[in-house]
Amino acid sequence: MKVMNVKNIKMIIEYKGTRYSGWQRQTNAPTVQGEIEKVLYKVTGQKISVNGSSRTDAGVHACGKCINFRADISIPVERLPFALNAHLPKDIAVIDAQLAHIDFHSRYHAKGKKYVYNIYNRRFPSPIHMDYCWHVAKKLDVQRMREAAQYIIGSHDFGAFKSTGASNPSDVRTVYTIEFIENDDMISMEISGKSFLYNMVRIIMGTLVDVGLGKKNPEEIKDIILSKDRKNAGKTAPANGLMLKEVYY
Amino acid sequence: MKVMNVKNIKMIIEYKGTRYSGWQRQTNAPTVQGEIEKVLYKVTGQKISVNGSSRTDAGVHACGKCINFRADISIPVERLPFALNAHLPKDIAVIDAQLAHIDFHSRYHAKGKKYVYNIYNRRFPSPIHMDYCWHVAKKLDVQRMREAAQYIIGSHDFGAFKSTGASNPSDVRTVYTIEFIENDDMISMEISGKSFLYNMVRIIMGTLVDVGLGKKNPEEIKDIILSKDRKNAGKTAPANGLMLKEVYY
Repeated sequence: MKVMNVKNIKMIIEYKGTRYSGWQRQTNAPTVQGEIEKVLYKVTGQKISVNGSSRTDAGVHACGKCINFRADISIPVERLPFALNAHLPKDIAVIDAQLAHIDFHSRYHAKGKKYVYNIYNRRFPSPIHMDYCWHVAKKLDVQRMREAAQYIIGSHDFGAFKSTGASNPSDVRTVYTIEFIENDDMISMEISGKSFLYNMVRIIMGTLVDVGLGKKNPEEIKDIILSKDRKNAGKTAPANGLMLKEVYY
Repeated sequence: MKVMNVKNIKMIIEYKGTRYSGWQRQTNAPTVQGEIEKVLYKVTGQKISVNGSSRTDAGVHACGKCINFRADISIPVERLPFALNAHLPKDIAVIDAQLAHIDFHSRYHAKGKKYVYNIYNRRFPSPIHMDYCWHVAKKLDVQRMREAAQYIIGSHDFGAFKSTGASNPSDVRTVYTIEFIENDDMISMEISGKSFLYNMVRIIMGTLVDVGLGKKNPEEIKDIILSKDRKNAGKTAPANGLMLKEVYY
């Protein structure tokens, strides 16, 4: 009789989301979860289902996403990244693997997440940065965006900042920090929080860009939040500018 | 009788070289020059031949490449980037256009060029950076690479640092500066010089990586240069890490 020895394995993955219909497994479209499970099957011979710390949308990237899975596999955990990367497409890579407590769950146990949203802010688009940045041609006033961001930090009902149709028991979320980093023509917004509503980071970005363009005043953010009405916030910024950077436990 | 009014137009272009067989027009392969001339024909109705400041190889990128062409066109020069970008593929963009003196030639009049070569230096490859970086898995000692670079700066016969087969009246070239910039796992070498031999920047990079890995001593660079023998230098670093950053006039 074979004794089962189930391990819980926690991995950090990085991917370029451009070619994928998001994270979550789908029957008829390439997804990051689908690719990883396919390769786990190839390497271990087992049908393994992986848990992701967040379900990124089509076109969204990740450089520090935590995932986990439980399985009785013989390959040593430190060899796992090499074994999986050898079969994964070049736009997905495992960059760390460790044994975790058997109860650990990458989504349920996440204490917070950090995303970065990149904007390329100059008159003409940048072919070099096109896969990872939203091109905004008109000059942004980043100082105004920083002011506006102060109203977003904290715990609020973010109903105005979620895609219509998404329903949750509560729309209250807590944003820990928002920082803007300028580097030549690139403007990066780093935002961390406990968790986010569907499309929340992209709608915050779209709204802050309206502030940076002078279409909205920084103080208006207060009223937009209070209204809980999606129509009052800005547009959903494009997926390609968004990257999941880190998950905290 | 129509009076000819030939202008000399100088443009700055940016491109992601991944999909192209280099800069120079070819009959049976997509090239950056070929795409630009095709779009110039579409926009002006004229067969225009453009001069590039350098012939980048397949897979090499550019973010500040100067090109020029002479033609009698009616479209105002300041509208040209918009008109061309509307038709160019997303991985090529015109980011500036100006009238130049009728004699100006983007290649013959270049006083110098700056290239940047990017390395991603960590154990596992980075999907996010894969198109623009050479992945070097073993830890590099950048301080050793900086020491070695001091022997390259200046005027030398760089015969050891050109691809075999390439023949020039003289292999003497002048390297102005080499700087290494470290940013997390990314190591960027910025190198400027009057002009470079075929594959010279990539062979310098390959050789300095040997120094950074401890396979060569910094002082050996002196002997490699003196030998004028390609076999003594390191391998040619991959094309995707190289970017033409700026051309000086």
